[in-house]
Amino acid sequence: MSGFSDLGHSRPDLDRERRQGLPEVVYGPGKTPAAIAGVVRELLAGNTGPVLVTRVDADAAAAVDVPGGRYDAAARLLVWRPAPSRGFRVVVASAGTSDAPVAAEAAAVAAAVGLDVHEIRDVGVAGLHRLLAERAALDAADTVVCVAGMEGALASVIGGLVGCPVVAVPTSVGYGASLDGVTALLAMLSSCAAGVVVVNIDSGFGAAMAAHRLARAARR
Amino acid sequence: MSGFSDLGHSRPDLDRERRQGLPEVVYGPGKTPAAIAGVVRELLAGNTGPVLVTRVDADAAAAVDVPGGRYDAAARLLVWRPAPSRGFRVVVASAGTSDAPVAAEAAAVAAAVGLDVHEIRDVGVAGLHRLLAERAALDAADTVVCVAGMEGALASVIGGLVGCPVVAVPTSVGYGASLDGVTALLAMLSSCAAGVVVVNIDSGFGAAMAAHRLARAARR
Amino acid sequence: MSGFSDLGHSRPDLDRERRQGLPEVVYGPGKTPAAIAGVVRELLAGNTGPVLVTRVDADAAAAVDVPGGRYDAAARLLVWRPAPSRGFRVVVASAGTSDAPVAAEAAAVAAAVGLDVHEIRDVGVAGLHRLLAERAALDAADTVVCVAGMEGALASVIGGLVGCPVVAVPTSVGYGASLDGVTALLAMLSSCAAGVVVVNIDSGFGAAMAAHRLARAARR
Amino acid sequence: MSGFSDLGHSRPDLDRERRQGLPEVVYGPGKTPAAIAGVVRELLAGNTGPVLVTRVDADAAAAVDVPGGRYDAAARLLVWRPAPSRGFRVVVASAGTSDAPVAAEAAAVAAAVGLDVHEIRDVGVAGLHRLLAERAALDAADTVVCVAGMEGALASVIGGLVGCPVVAVPTSVGYGASLDGVTALLAMLSSCAAGVVVVNIDSGFGAAMAAHRLARAARR
Amino acid sequence: MSGFSDLGHSRPDLDRERRQGLPEVVYGPGKTPAAIAGVVRELLAGNTGPVLVTRVDADAAAAVDVPGGRYDAAARLLVWRPAPSRGFRVVVASAGTSDAPVAAEAAAVAAAVGLDVHEIRDVGVAGLHRLLAERAALDAADTVVCVAGMEGALASVIGGLVGCPVVAVPTSVGYGASLDGVTALLAMLSSCAAGVVVVNIDSGFGAAMAAHRLARAARR
Amino acid sequence: MSGFSDLGHSRPDLDRERRQGLPEVVYGPGKTPAAIAGVVRELLAGNTGPVLVTRVDADAAAAVDVPGGRYDAAARLLVWRPAPSRGFRVVVASAGTSDAPVAAEAAAVAAAVGLDVHEIRDVGVAGLHRLLAERAALDAADTVVCVAGMEGALASVIGGLVGCPVVAVPTSVGYGASLDGVTALLAMLSSCAAGVVVVNIDSGFGAAMAAHRLARAARR
Amino acid sequence: MSGFSDLGHSRPDLDRERRQGLPEVVYGPGKTPAAIAGVVRELLAGNTGPVLVTRVDADAAAAVDVPGGRYDAAARLLVWRPAPSRGFRVVVASAGTSDAPVAAEAAAVAAAVGLDVHEIRDVGVAGLHRLLAERAALDAADTVVCVAGMEGALASVIGGLVGCPVVAVPTSVGYGASLDGVTALLAMLSSCAAGVVVVNIDSGFGAAMAAHRLARAARR
Amino acid sequence: MSGFSDLGHSRPDLDRERRQGLPEVVYGPGKTPAAIAGVVRELLAGNTGPVLVTRVDADAAAAVDVPGGRYDAAARLLVWRPAPSRGFRVVVASAGTSDAPVAAEAAAVAAAVGLDVHEIRDVGVAGLHRLLAERAALDAADTVVCVAGMEGALASVIGGLVGCPVVAVPTSVGYGASLDGVTALLAMLSSCAAGVVVVNIDSGFGAAMAAHRLARAARR
Repeated sequence: MSGFSDLGHSRPDLDRERRQGLPEVVYGPGKTPAAIAGVVRELLAGNTGPVLVTRVDADAAAAVDVPGGRYDAAARLLVWRPAPSRGFRVVVASAGTSDAPVAAEAAAVAAAVGLDVHEIRDVGVAGLHRLLAERAALDAADTVVCVAGMEGALASVIGGLVGCPVVAVPTSVGYGASLDGVTALLAMLSSCAAGVVVVNIDSGFGAAMAAHRLARAARR
Repeated sequence: MSGFSDLGHSRPDLDRERRQGLPEVVYGPGKTPAAIAGVVRELLAGNTGPVLVTRVDADAAAAVDVPGGRYDAAARLLVWRPAPSRGFRVVVASAGTSDAPVAAEAAAVAAAVGLDVHEIRDVGVAGLHRLLAERAALDAADTVVCVAGMEGALASVIGGLVGCPVVAVPTSVGYGASLDGVTALLAMLSSCAAGVVVVNIDSGFGAAMAAHRLARAARR
Repeated sequence: MSGFSDLGHSRPDLDRERRQGLPEVVYGPGKTPAAIAGVVRELLAGNTGPVLVTRVDADAAAAVDVPGGRYDAAARLLVWRPAPSRGFRVVVASAGTSDAPVAAEAAAVAAAVGLDVHEIRDVGVAGLHRLLAERAALDAADTVVCVAGMEGALASVIGGLVGCPVVAVPTSVGYGASLDGVTALLAMLSSCAAGVVVVNIDSGFGAAMAAHRLARAARR
Repeated sequence: MSGFSDLGHSRPDLDRERRQGLPEVVYGPGKTPAAIAGVVRELLAGNTGPVLVTRVDADAAAAVDVPGGRYDAAARLLVWRPAPSRGFRVVVASAGTSDAPVAAEAAAVAAAVGLDVHEIRDVGVAGLHRLLAERAALDAADTVVCVAGMEGALASVIGGLVGCPVVAVPTSVGYGASLDGVTALLAMLSSCAAGVVVVNIDSGFGAAMAAHRLARAARR
Repeated sequence: MSGFSDLGHSRPDLDRERRQGLPEVVYGPGKTPAAIAGVVRELLAGNTGPVLVTRVDADAAAAVDVPGGRYDAAARLLVWRPAPSRGFRVVVASAGTSDAPVAAEAAAVAAAVGLDVHEIRDVGVAGLHRLLAERAALDAADTVVCVAGMEGALASVIGGLVGCPVVAVPTSVGYGASLDGVTALLAMLSSCAAGVVVVNIDSGFGAAMAAHRLARAARR
Repeated sequence: MSGFSDLGHSRPDLDRERRQGLPEVVYGPGKTPAAIAGVVRELLAGNTGPVLVTRVDADAAAAVDVPGGRYDAAARLLVWRPAPSRGFRVVVASAGTSDAPVAAEAAAVAAAVGLDVHEIRDVGVAGLHRLLAERAALDAADTVVCVAGMEGALASVIGGLVGCPVVAVPTSVGYGASLDGVTALLAMLSSCAAGVVVVNIDSGFGAAMAAHRLARAARR
Repeated sequence: MSGFSDLGHSRPDLDRERRQGLPEVVYGPGKTPAAIAGVVRELLAGNTGPVLVTRVDADAAAAVDVPGGRYDAAARLLVWRPAPSRGFRVVVASAGTSDAPVAAEAAAVAAAVGLDVHEIRDVGVAGLHRLLAERAALDAADTVVCVAGMEGALASVIGGLVGCPVVAVPTSVGYGASLDGVTALLAMLSSCAAGVVVVNIDSGFGAAMAAHRLARAARR
Repeated sequence: MSGFSDLGHSRPDLDRERRQGLPEVVYGPGKTPAAIAGVVRELLAGNTGPVLVTRVDADAAAAVDVPGGRYDAAARLLVWRPAPSRGFRVVVASAGTSDAPVAAEAAAVAAAVGLDVHEIRDVGVAGLHRLLAERAALDAADTVVCVAGMEGALASVIGGLVGCPVVAVPTSVGYGASLDGVTALLAMLSSCAAGVVVVNIDSGFGAAMAAHRLARAARR
């Protein structure tokens, strides 16, 4: 058995659920609704877990003709067969209101793969008391996903407050010296809070997948 | 109680062990042996867990006059009161022989904080069979720390093989277009393997601290 | 004889076929259909081999009024007088479905200049078994063109598997730290697989022309 | 009158004290002790205020043969005729012990030009309680100079706490993604705390001169 | 009392006026008129000073349904309850006509928070006499905000002429080597005029807020 | 007399013709036709030489209501009172057909200020015989303006062939590693042909103005 | 059989000769003479072809205690069992005398693996007649390795003259805008000569290995 | 006749004096004194004009065994047969004392090739009156070479004052955001003073050679 389908234009990885506990996730951009539908059908047939399509807009989502899918407009996510709760608590904390779309993707993907998600919004460090008011929620987390653009200082502050894993997501929010998220990325990688880890700019998806891996490690 | 000492030149954080399960770690460069010794004494007195000094060369290490320390030359690490095993398996996989010092730091710090470390060396993707021969060790890991310079492709390959957390450490190994580790850093952040997380260039320490956070989450 | 025409706006190089075994190829962007047609007529009249126009969209292609041209929409390529097969086997391997347009350009240009092309799609390293299933096709290749965006790790893995020339084409697929293809470019140049060579970002054309040069060297 | 001397190799600006309330400051690197002495004598003769030479090491300082100078080794600063106190309170807060040389330059230059300086050291955001313990000192400041390397998050946190001017000095402390201070620089410029201003990397001098300008504005 | 409201999507910081003498300023982009209106109402109710929304276009401004607001189209600024004059003189000097929108934002925000603003336009250094003709206005300033794109040389020239604080605002005016304002930013940070401070590219807002902090320090 | 007009929004420099032999040139982008017309009238009234507006599209040009202007669509240039010939020969050589707009701006501005212009098009180094065929024209030049994108090699080749001044203009032609003209810019600055000088990316205008300065020096 | 040895510190790939026609090549930097000797013995025992160690200085080379090795000081290369001639002609052309070390590495590695090497030195494009005098040698080549720093224009000129494969090696020769070879790298990737391929900065080794792959393809 | 010598390691271009009015100039770094001497002898024999070796330190200069050479230590330049005056006036203006070595190279090379050089030192824009005091010298120049590091503003100010050619030389003077001269380079290329041209960082040599070309154009 090859462990994948060959649809010509793509080769869905049907062995991934065995290796990683989750079917391959479909990246929407650049694919037609028909191509998405074809891959989704293969993944639904060849796996037992949740099937996700990321970064798909409302029109394309409506045109993907596979029954049972649910669309989350804020997260731009399509989901079939969401996973039941695995009892792993992920806090998604975001610095400003402009970071909301990235935080929404992180939260929705994490929920779809069975994590328990709690969102904390608009807790940027310019008004530190807003973050400190959420101390209890942070302390109860199994993992914190920290979403911030501009200078990304929130990752260092949260990284200093909590002892659980902190997955930092730089966003492209900001202008000028923010360099489309590169500044937040570099700042998070240079964090003085030891053990903070970083994913790609605007990748709420990547943070949620990191949390999925953490939840697997925690359950062994 | 303030939660820190004030030594004038520095303020050891004596509350960190409570927050994060580990005393503050001392960064060696730029400090005199006497200054290091002063901070180490405060940390030993104010905490119960392991006390570490990173990136200290052999001469400086010998001059730090605090009994009970053990020096690891390959890792350039000084340790007092190493933690007992916590039963969390960390595989440190490195791509080439030049990556050895960074891998050594990751392994030694992880061991000092109580993680069970297994090292796999020289498994770069140019000879894939060397990595695939270690499939069993990778599958048994609770976390893989992946250390690679140049193009950093090892992180993507391991990220695709295993389902546990993968912490990628780009190294400054390489020349020209490797840009002192920036290329490996960007490549690891752009990895096609979902959920790989990244720490700073050459930061074996950062990867070990990330693994420490993961082990805490796994134990809850 | 001057070896070129002077059309005022451009000077088609009519000596190139003698030097390089192939008429000058026309780069479409920024030229009107009439200007393209003028140059194509000069090239058809002054050479005997295939005449190509790259990166031309369907509307412009339809407006180029020179009989005998064939348009390949996926590759955005116009071709007159395609060359007969020269018995040189080029495998075009691409990492993801988003890399398809670049792979299509490489494949179509290579075919138009007389190379035997075999395409392998969606064999990114996150699911290595998809690539390893194509081992026989790779081993039979005279040259592999490797098309990948994001971290571009496919070039290193293929470069380690095969002994024939590997021409790596970084693509602008990806976001954030992928830096519009610069990350894949730098990573491919830093490859641990010795002897991998690289062309410009998204330049399926450049890779095909490199393969054309290789085929010439092989035939001597 | 020309407003400057012409020593051949340099032209000390003797009009600057009139324009800016402070004689020209001499930048030490690349000048011989004799050249420094020559310029210092001109500046002492042509002005009434303090004369400073920055970034001069101990050996060179000892060789500058002009009576009345005082050398500050930590700040690498030579001073003649320090100014009396002007009653303007500058707090120099630094994030880590490695930032000490830059903070020392800021503090020593500020003191030499007549500002009242209070230093707060090792208050990086990874242990926020160390900074919050200094809240009273920060609130009493007329200006805070904030010195930090790595991700430079301290500037945003202080910028959010206080309402007085905050002059951020990025330092070259850190490695890898810290990019020799560029990351802290970009982060401070992207700060979410409105109205934070930034000077060049490692420029304790620049921050002190900015504070000097502020003190002048405050006195009008 | 928490010091902030929780509107779900955002948490207006109601304690900021106490800390910094000015209510939180709303950043318009990415917010709906309804969301803006909701935050503005909270800020008007929970503070006594001016309430500002920056970077809002005319259509959105018209749709923000809160009585008493005034819209400045050149500055793209909405203001409620502008502050009375505080007797602190800010000169906003701009290098070229293309810098006008950034200068307008700086001037309008500064006026709204109670500073006395005088604008000097089109005084770029290629015709130095235009700037020198404004010498008296510059000498009378408590602070100069210097707005310039391209090479940003105006900041150095003004920084050399005046003794008061100079806040430099690089703009994205220019093309090619101007790198969307990065060149002016780097140049201003490298200024040979000691004590010039810099804010983010195109941030007229940031400069005005820096001036607000200066005015507070001046009044103590 | 001040040497400039003050129109509020701009200050035309009426002294520039005296200093530099040419009235100030108006940069079109961001100005309304009415504002352009106002400045043009001032410049026509206050000078005797040619008045130019650069980078203005056809619609805007038609709306500038000042009699006597001539519009060059290829160069996007408006000219009043073009200067008579000064007998200084400028060759404008361009590498590819995509460089035509930049070459056109250089040629049209140079002609408007009285230089004798000869254009040579499509002489990129991939077909060197096309350039060598123009050897006589190059040898007769007083100055060569060399316009090239991509790798910009034409500047080095021409710089090696001729002994007169060579002004290199990098263009933003190319993709990927061409980095919007930055690669050609850096390459031209690094040219192995000694004494080649460089202006900003796409700045045909800058090259023509450099030629104007050269012609002035030549006439003394 | 595993296809590799495990020496603890490294895993020589003993299967590589089968896959790629050449034993693994040892990268010298960072390895002790004893470690080099250990790996070389494994490679000699486990393969039949040439064994190479690159970038090793004279002292280290002398200390590698394995009989039969030959040291090339200019190329800094150690070779055992050089391959017999395979009748594939490689011209190594270099632009300036400072490029000599990189050209020497390319030539020596190519010769050691059995290619017929002809070197052409100091043919930079600032004096084009020096290159054109070598036209016959270039036309007779099966492959040209083009070594150049600064602006790297030689690659484009040679790429336009010949029809065989051109492997461009950017060097770190130059200063300032040459950016340690990055400018030449980018320029070569942007070459207007179609089908030129590029390897890493200063990688004479990489170019020789690319030529080795080409020679294999040519022999099939 | 070939127009060059072939010394094996290098090919002095003996035709360059005919093409460009000056023998090839020897770049010293990386050449042994014996190699320099060999090339110098060829150039003296095959030309009639001045022979120069740049960037050679005192020890190497003393070891170059060719009679008649004169060494300028400040400029690090060796000269044989300096050219007589050609009556072309070049002003070399430098911003700060640290720019002196680059200015010295520009001045010495220009003088050696027969230009009349006048140096103006330490006229940075932070004290504008020092520059304005030299207005007469600037107005009398046929060309101004402007040498400045940090933000390079001097080029724009001089470019606005004079009408003759201005050749800007960015220097690597400065730290942090000066980026080893890249900031000054970009700023000079972005200058608001039209027609300023730029050479490579620290290339006093390049500026002098540009002035040589200008002088040739002026004499025709």
